[in-house]
Amino acid sequence: MTGYQIDLNSDIGESFGHYTIGLDEDVLKVITSANIACGYHAGDHHTMYTTVKTAKANGIGIGAHPGLPDLQGFGRRHITVDPEDVYHFVTYQIGALKGFCHVHNVEMNHVKAHGALYNMAATDPAIADAIAKAVKNVDNTLILFGLSGSELIRAGQNHGLMTASEVFADRTYQPNGMLTPRSEEEAMIMDPDQAVQQVLQMIYDNRVVAVDGTPVDIEADTVCVHGDNPHALKFVEQLRGRLSEKGIDIRRVGA
Amino acid sequence: MTGYQIDLNSDIGESFGHYTIGLDEDVLKVITSANIACGYHAGDHHTMYTTVKTAKANGIGIGAHPGLPDLQGFGRRHITVDPEDVYHFVTYQIGALKGFCHVHNVEMNHVKAHGALYNMAATDPAIADAIAKAVKNVDNTLILFGLSGSELIRAGQNHGLMTASEVFADRTYQPNGMLTPRSEEEAMIMDPDQAVQQVLQMIYDNRVVAVDGTPVDIEADTVCVHGDNPHALKFVEQLRGRLSEKGIDIRRVGA
Amino acid sequence: MTGYQIDLNSDIGESFGHYTIGLDEDVLKVITSANIACGYHAGDHHTMYTTVKTAKANGIGIGAHPGLPDLQGFGRRHITVDPEDVYHFVTYQIGALKGFCHVHNVEMNHVKAHGALYNMAATDPAIADAIAKAVKNVDNTLILFGLSGSELIRAGQNHGLMTASEVFADRTYQPNGMLTPRSEEEAMIMDPDQAVQQVLQMIYDNRVVAVDGTPVDIEADTVCVHGDNPHALKFVEQLRGRLSEKGIDIRRVGA
Amino acid sequence: MTGYQIDLNSDIGESFGHYTIGLDEDVLKVITSANIACGYHAGDHHTMYTTVKTAKANGIGIGAHPGLPDLQGFGRRHITVDPEDVYHFVTYQIGALKGFCHVHNVEMNHVKAHGALYNMAATDPAIADAIAKAVKNVDNTLILFGLSGSELIRAGQNHGLMTASEVFADRTYQPNGMLTPRSEEEAMIMDPDQAVQQVLQMIYDNRVVAVDGTPVDIEADTVCVHGDNPHALKFVEQLRGRLSEKGIDIRRVGA
Repeated sequence: MTGYQIDLNSDIGESFGHYTIGLDEDVLKVITSANIACGYHAGDHHTMYTTVKTAKANGIGIGAHPGLPDLQGFGRRHITVDPEDVYHFVTYQIGALKGFCHVHNVEMNHVKAHGALYNMAATDPAIADAIAKAVKNVDNTLILFGLSGSELIRAGQNHGLMTASEVFADRTYQPNGMLTPRSEEEAMIMDPDQAVQQVLQMIYDNRVVAVDGTPVDIEADTVCVHGDNPHALKFVEQLRGRLSEKGIDIRRVGA
Repeated sequence: MTGYQIDLNSDIGESFGHYTIGLDEDVLKVITSANIACGYHAGDHHTMYTTVKTAKANGIGIGAHPGLPDLQGFGRRHITVDPEDVYHFVTYQIGALKGFCHVHNVEMNHVKAHGALYNMAATDPAIADAIAKAVKNVDNTLILFGLSGSELIRAGQNHGLMTASEVFADRTYQPNGMLTPRSEEEAMIMDPDQAVQQVLQMIYDNRVVAVDGTPVDIEADTVCVHGDNPHALKFVEQLRGRLSEKGIDIRRVGA
Repeated sequence: MTGYQIDLNSDIGESFGHYTIGLDEDVLKVITSANIACGYHAGDHHTMYTTVKTAKANGIGIGAHPGLPDLQGFGRRHITVDPEDVYHFVTYQIGALKGFCHVHNVEMNHVKAHGALYNMAATDPAIADAIAKAVKNVDNTLILFGLSGSELIRAGQNHGLMTASEVFADRTYQPNGMLTPRSEEEAMIMDPDQAVQQVLQMIYDNRVVAVDGTPVDIEADTVCVHGDNPHALKFVEQLRGRLSEKGIDIRRVGA
Repeated sequence: MTGYQIDLNSDIGESFGHYTIGLDEDVLKVITSANIACGYHAGDHHTMYTTVKTAKANGIGIGAHPGLPDLQGFGRRHITVDPEDVYHFVTYQIGALKGFCHVHNVEMNHVKAHGALYNMAATDPAIADAIAKAVKNVDNTLILFGLSGSELIRAGQNHGLMTASEVFADRTYQPNGMLTPRSEEEAMIMDPDQAVQQVLQMIYDNRVVAVDGTPVDIEADTVCVHGDNPHALKFVEQLRGRLSEKGIDIRRVGA
């Protein structure tokens, strides 16, 4: 063991009614934390029941993945919501998932905001505070996930929560530590080796090199990975293999 | 004190978004148990937040009021749902309301099914079992409300839950102990005095006289009352006054 | 040419938001009538726009496929709706699809009820009448599809509409001319040859042999086919090929 | 007669399912154009059926009132939607209302965007263009309502549509001709006399005095009025009475 550890988290449980998406069964074998949709932007009560059950069987950390109330837009469209509203709907969604944790007799481990809500919480202190307040007031043992260096991490700390700083393997960073918007050409890292290198540097040195070459300080508790297609799944397997070879302990945050 | 006690419960928290219904503020002053809508047939996260807060401030027993997923039909339309689906969506809705109980640091007291789900659970053992199982597995200290003599009460007892048998002041009964369907002429009791008399007889003698004159055994732990209009609200005030005069202790089930 | 003709219809345009289902592109190459979901049980405004466009490009008959308001249940769950409600929501859905027909400057050809609504309309005269009335009052040149021998066909005729009697290739029939419920073992015809034979007999002789051997009179204007998986799609191609070999003219109803 | 004419329009038909709002019956007696909700931000198929019927009986101009897909937020929350999406959902909503116009054998007269969509269309040329394109392609005889001087009016003109410039009686204007945001103190005109004066000046002189005293050119084809409470309704009656006294012809646009 090297003394280094990292968590791999992925969005999961996004199927709705007759509509099935994601390679959940496979992804749940290679990640350590599952962010489970709670019915506002995706997912439904049946998917939540099944996903919590499978995550528990795989020993994965179970997390609520609250999103904006926008099934049609999959929670990816910005909606102007006031912080009080955010406080209420994050409470609702965490509570709903907790119902299934009780039913399956398993602890919930974390909360990660989804999509547009995640992005808003990264930069808007009032939205970030509303999310952190909901987490604290529903269950203050839950770990709050947020973009490394974001307002959400700050809000979690202000409320005395355990936080997990999230980094990305396949996205580039700007000099201010924020992600390069997907609209820009160099936003994505397509080369798996380069992506693995970026993660290793973040784990070893708490640092990432921004698109303009600037070194940026970064906390890396958990890496966001995807399982919505076979290509993405394969990358997660590669990443996991490479990190394991280096002796990095892959385990859920808080374990 | 006479040694007799009764609970008065009412559906509450049914406003949604921009749409406001019900005289919640007033009703919460005269009842002892609040059945709070959970967002499937009515209600939303904002209403739930506010209603739990007000119910707590008034010392009212707080209950989840899970319904069918049918906002358009207000949960009153029969939908063919299989028991597994019921198990999951009742779990979801109880969990969601529990989130708000945590936030307001108050215990949830009971669960009552809403509308068409309530009616299905009265006569369909599989639906009744699914609801009872959800209640037990989410929190086995919750009290399950159900129509007196119904399959739901039986299911609750089978699962070892505390149950509360519900009776109606303004509805007539059939010889088999079930309510006379609203479609029939003599379904409603319009005379307040007669309604009060029916409740008193149910409390004192555990008996109700059916429409054909047959005396029927009945358990009466809680009376269903309504607060959706000033007329209904006034009746609740009258009923409460008359029961109090008789020395009957009006308090929430389980208190 | 034999003088015989038949239409092949399929449900299409059922994708919603981020959720994609069905092999629409491929199916639209082998059918002659497209039943396009209208946003109540499946589909959305984007899918409708795209599907009408593609159907027009392929010269396919365009039809509205109104369903129950139940995205979660994909319109397959029975909901107790009153006929007036059916009249209104079928009007709404036909109107919405007509919007896209105007935009793409193409005529709408037919209406087929979906899922549980289709089944209800087969046997319930009041529901059937409500659907026929909506079709007639929105546009009386539309052709009403319905199960051969059903109440819906009768209702369409009562309202003076053109109707198209629908038959199934892969389902068996009961002596009364209704489909054998899926819950029964012999409901499906798994052998493609047998399915083709059944269709040929229905076209040539206006007859089908029920599961108990009884010959049943049947009208066959259009055959319901499916394209939700590669296996189903392949069967449609086979069926189309075999019917063409026999000289049967495969074209949309009314053309 | 003075040769002057004006239209009074109001949002109507916003009830949904079990939820009733607005004094529609009364409002429909004093306005000349009804903007009818189409089920995305408010309203449903039943309300649309009834509202078109009543509007026709009162001889009121019937208009579609398409909004953002946000029942929970009543269409008042800004959602980032791309123009193609707007094109599709405005098409859908106009089409749906047209279904009811066919059923009641009455012409649709106009289209007015609702809430946040209306505001976006006032200043965003791409959103404005998408709405105008939908109106033109569904039915180019429809009159497009828009804020006087807005991008939406320009887009309508670009597409060769008849447009109606909308003004407000109870809102103040900024020097650039836009409304003073509601967040600012002087946004509302509370004095009925002053409101009537503002409307008269807009009709007679095509001018309004902005909050800083600047005279601003303005087109006034239709005045937006409200009927969601008795106070608002009374103001409409006063306004209508005062305009009539002056000999101004109150009639729907295009009549």
